[in-house]
Amino acid sequence: MIAPMRNSASRWLKAFAAALARSDIKGAAQLFEPEGCWRDLVAFTWTLKTFEGRGEIAAMLAATLASAKPGAFALRDSHDNEAWFSFETAAGRGIGHLRLRKGKCWTLLTTLQELKGFEEKAGAGREAGVAHGAIPGRKSWLERRREEVAGLGRTQQPYVVIVGGGQNGIALAARLKRLAVPALVIEQNERPGDSWRKRYKSLVLHDPVWYDHMPYLPFPDHWPVFSPKDKIGDWLEMYTRVMELDYWSSTACTGAKYDEAAGEWQVEVLRNGRPLTLRPKHLVLATGMSGYPNIPEIPGAESFAGRIVHSSKHDGGEAWRGKRCVVLGANNSAHDIAADLWEQGAAEVTMVQRSSSVVVTSDALLEHAWSRLYSEAAVAAGITTDIADLTTASVPFKLLPEFQRPIYDAIRKRDAALYEGLDKAGFLYDFGEDGSGIHSVYLRRGAGYCIDVGASQLIIDGRIKLRSRVEISRINEHSVTLSDGAEIPADLVVYATGYGSMNQWAAKLISQEVADRVGKCWGLGSGTRHDPGPWVGELRNMWKPTQQPGLWFQGGNLMQARHYSLYLALQLKARMEGLPTPVYYIDPVHHQS
Amino acid sequence: MIAPMRNSASRWLKAFAAALARSDIKGAAQLFEPEGCWRDLVAFTWTLKTFEGRGEIAAMLAATLASAKPGAFALRDSHDNEAWFSFETAAGRGIGHLRLRKGKCWTLLTTLQELKGFEEKAGAGREAGVAHGAIPGRKSWLERRREEVAGLGRTQQPYVVIVGGGQNGIALAARLKRLAVPALVIEQNERPGDSWRKRYKSLVLHDPVWYDHMPYLPFPDHWPVFSPKDKIGDWLEMYTRVMELDYWSSTACTGAKYDEAAGEWQVEVLRNGRPLTLRPKHLVLATGMSGYPNIPEIPGAESFAGRIVHSSKHDGGEAWRGKRCVVLGANNSAHDIAADLWEQGAAEVTMVQRSSSVVVTSDALLEHAWSRLYSEAAVAAGITTDIADLTTASVPFKLLPEFQRPIYDAIRKRDAALYEGLDKAGFLYDFGEDGSGIHSVYLRRGAGYCIDVGASQLIIDGRIKLRSRVEISRINEHSVTLSDGAEIPADLVVYATGYGSMNQWAAKLISQEVADRVGKCWGLGSGTRHDPGPWVGELRNMWKPTQQPGLWFQGGNLMQARHYSLYLALQLKARMEGLPTPVYYIDPVHHQS
Repeated sequence: MIAPMRNSASRWLKAFAAALARSDIKGAAQLFEPEGCWRDLVAFTWTLKTFEGRGEIAAMLAATLASAKPGAFALRDSHDNEAWFSFETAAGRGIGHLRLRKGKCWTLLTTLQELKGFEEKAGAGREAGVAHGAIPGRKSWLERRREEVAGLGRTQQPYVVIVGGGQNGIALAARLKRLAVPALVIEQNERPGDSWRKRYKSLVLHDPVWYDHMPYLPFPDHWPVFSPKDKIGDWLEMYTRVMELDYWSSTACTGAKYDEAAGEWQVEVLRNGRPLTLRPKHLVLATGMSGYPNIPEIPGAESFAGRIVHSSKHDGGEAWRGKRCVVLGANNSAHDIAADLWEQGAAEVTMVQRSSSVVVTSDALLEHAWSRLYSEAAVAAGITTDIADLTTASVPFKLLPEFQRPIYDAIRKRDAALYEGLDKAGFLYDFGEDGSGIHSVYLRRGAGYCIDVGASQLIIDGRIKLRSRVEISRINEHSVTLSDGAEIPADLVVYATGYGSMNQWAAKLISQEVADRVGKCWGLGSGTRHDPGPWVGELRNMWKPTQQPGLWFQGGNLMQARHYSLYLALQLKARMEGLPTPVYYIDPVHHQS
Repeated sequence: MIAPMRNSASRWLKAFAAALARSDIKGAAQLFEPEGCWRDLVAFTWTLKTFEGRGEIAAMLAATLASAKPGAFALRDSHDNEAWFSFETAAGRGIGHLRLRKGKCWTLLTTLQELKGFEEKAGAGREAGVAHGAIPGRKSWLERRREEVAGLGRTQQPYVVIVGGGQNGIALAARLKRLAVPALVIEQNERPGDSWRKRYKSLVLHDPVWYDHMPYLPFPDHWPVFSPKDKIGDWLEMYTRVMELDYWSSTACTGAKYDEAAGEWQVEVLRNGRPLTLRPKHLVLATGMSGYPNIPEIPGAESFAGRIVHSSKHDGGEAWRGKRCVVLGANNSAHDIAADLWEQGAAEVTMVQRSSSVVVTSDALLEHAWSRLYSEAAVAAGITTDIADLTTASVPFKLLPEFQRPIYDAIRKRDAALYEGLDKAGFLYDFGEDGSGIHSVYLRRGAGYCIDVGASQLIIDGRIKLRSRVEISRINEHSVTLSDGAEIPADLVVYATGYGSMNQWAAKLISQEVADRVGKCWGLGSGTRHDPGPWVGELRNMWKPTQQPGLWFQGGNLMQARHYSLYLALQLKARMEGLPTPVYYIDPVHHQS
């Protein structure tokens, strides 16, 4: 099967390269299926954008071909109906991926990987670390680093300020460091990693280790499949140190304002309580996809004699031994927290489920969802983290449901007993409105699912009590009243109610006007619950130019932190070096939150 | 060339396996050249030992074959006259390397790589990190780790105590951690990495990055070719943390005594000034090959008005701007320190050279010595760090000069101008007594060489003043008097006079009797200067059983820390698990220091 694909991929790529070389836009578009998709990550368009169908593809090419100057297409690898290739543009070098059906392109991915003349100093290009010879007054590495650290933000302004030092701020800062872009991370917690450490005590990553590597420095091969939160916290702290990131902890951003004339930001920070103004050219909000808590306003809350806490501030179940606990919500945190409260001996744990959730067991995901790209088997098959990430990126969001549905069909069968139990317990679950599961719902709304590691069985067994299709309509001194009139005694109420859009951070730190100008972050416009249309086909505002010059968003899980930080870092580097970066398209704003 | 070697290696291995299988010791020995060598690292002999010639090989096989039960020999790879193979013994699995000449074995290496039933939990065997399900009273990773840390050395005795937390203590502790052997590192400095940080300010590794990886967690690929000392310090500190090593800093070992009856040590420590007794079964001194300073006793030293400091305590040249400095010694530290003093503006820097030194430029080593196994080119050619280490280990020390001499012949030509300049300046240099260069002299005496990064030119140019073939015979109030009668004014005298044998630590921490019983560490018995015979063919006492039960030595550069820690860790693990570990041979003691 390999040779035929190799031949047809080779043929296709030659035809494609030739069409581009002679600026034959129509000819190039004809090489795609009529509904074929081309996803470009910064290589042609200086943004992240998927073009669906020949018309959109032709329009993009008409606008970008002259500046992108693509060429040097070379087939690298092929199997089944897929192929990898390398290519160049005027500005850089890229990797592409191709899916063919009957000789036509079904999906195309083009990604920028490095800028010509501004390659990362790594491998054969790494620095010497020492200058041989006799250099009067020579300073040691430590002295130079200390001077750099002392001057940054004072005598030397960073080109980029990144607000938020979780995995996203850290991954982006690491990329920028390797690209020699002066960047400063601002983090309000005391230590790198605290954004993990300060979450509820029982938290363990629900994504497996192969998905979670940071750029450049993968975990050693004994790292557990699922990392406990404090272990990830320690890893991020050490990563920040050995990657020599400029990272100010105990530093809060109190405000930011864009100076149009100067083309720079005025970022106000409180570092260890002392005010300071930074003047970067670019401001990246890496404040966490799950960083801005949704706090429901429930009548009577102020009269509650117990404790009300959002899941992000909940510590652990130990303090609630013998107490009555109500958890509002039925997604991941709600399950984890309810199970932990039960394990630690709470007298009663009640989960209040307002709406349906996608529930899938962790084992089922390992078996059916992760195994092909992110697993020990994938490692053994030579699938590097980069290949896995690019393969994931190669599926246009439009086609994602089609790729994902078979996985959930299999999982539904695999765990039929569990689902039957949940049904009996009255738990509302689904597999996404179109049956495409967790990955889809994560991209559409960043919430609405639960990777089950044991809580479902506690619900089925009635050890976690369930009230579904209801809300908490009122909080009383020692109880909550549900929308069906039932009253549940409570010492603790946990709001596992999720998080708002990242542009709420822009409202808080910059202004409501800027937040409204850039609009909602995340979501695809799928028209499903919490992801209103119109369809935009990429995550809104993430890692790409926004309607506010100099304002960028970086967020998501560890895989996204790792993979997409590359594209944002390259965009910033290109701007710092004064390379032309003609942005093909910035989405109009359809939703403001 | 590949196929014939494959065939002959395959034939040889089959014959060898067959001879061993029928206990045909003579037949097995006949497969070697009459003077062929077999180096065994713990696989057959439970020690590190090279057998030279058929007689020694046959004697070893006669003693070990019944217990080692070797088998499952399988050819893995071959090229030129070399081949790799895997094999098993009763206790474990190993990797071997073979050099053939005319169908006979010239050199054989057998190494134990893992113990059956006690494999490291890594890759597909890694831990889950979380137990799915409902577990009442469950503790988090952090809580369990904290309990473990709190109990170690108090309610729970470590199986191994490692004195010294530089790269060797850390590498061994990491290996033991992965093998689930409770081990505790005792380090007198405040932070892991301080053994590097506290060296002279200009220190930069003279070995390149490809040689310096720690086990399991290689440097990221932007790491500089030559690591500045503080950067290595930070790396080791990070490594200690993320590998979850049990590491007590600010802890001094004040004494140790072996309790024969109990078969355990009583190790007295002062932890943050508070005394505590540890009772491990094994004690490893990882106190540094360069850990016990040689301080010459020079008449009049007490009358000196300036400062006298051993190179290990020297900080940096800055404080000596405008001052007159004398450096006693002409090896690595002497060169580095003299150059730094000059660079920082000392009024006068004089190097006092007592005897000849091997001098080779760093660039020449990169080109001629490192390139084949430890370089970017080697990485590109698929030579992993493990392959490079095993290839290095595959050269019996007896044959090392023969392998090394051509390198130094080439270097002598490459840098002819430099050597001519050194001649003119009166600097005494050589390439080892048999022309086999730095690697040999390092193994023979752990000193006596200099990897030049610029100081030689300063000597040639007269900017560092040289007095050679002399000693400091007397120190006066403001000067030193040389053995030729010359007097040199001095504000600073640096003793770059090297270090003593590691068994001096045994004398200091345990007793002179035990130090004498185990004898000198390091050195091959080559009969060259500072390495008196008889020939022993392996480094004395390193990583293997000594004449003192339960006492082990681990030391050397980063490569040795990485590679040889495996064999010591496997020996300790086997003992902990009660596996039979019949030691074939322990060297008699020929020298006590």
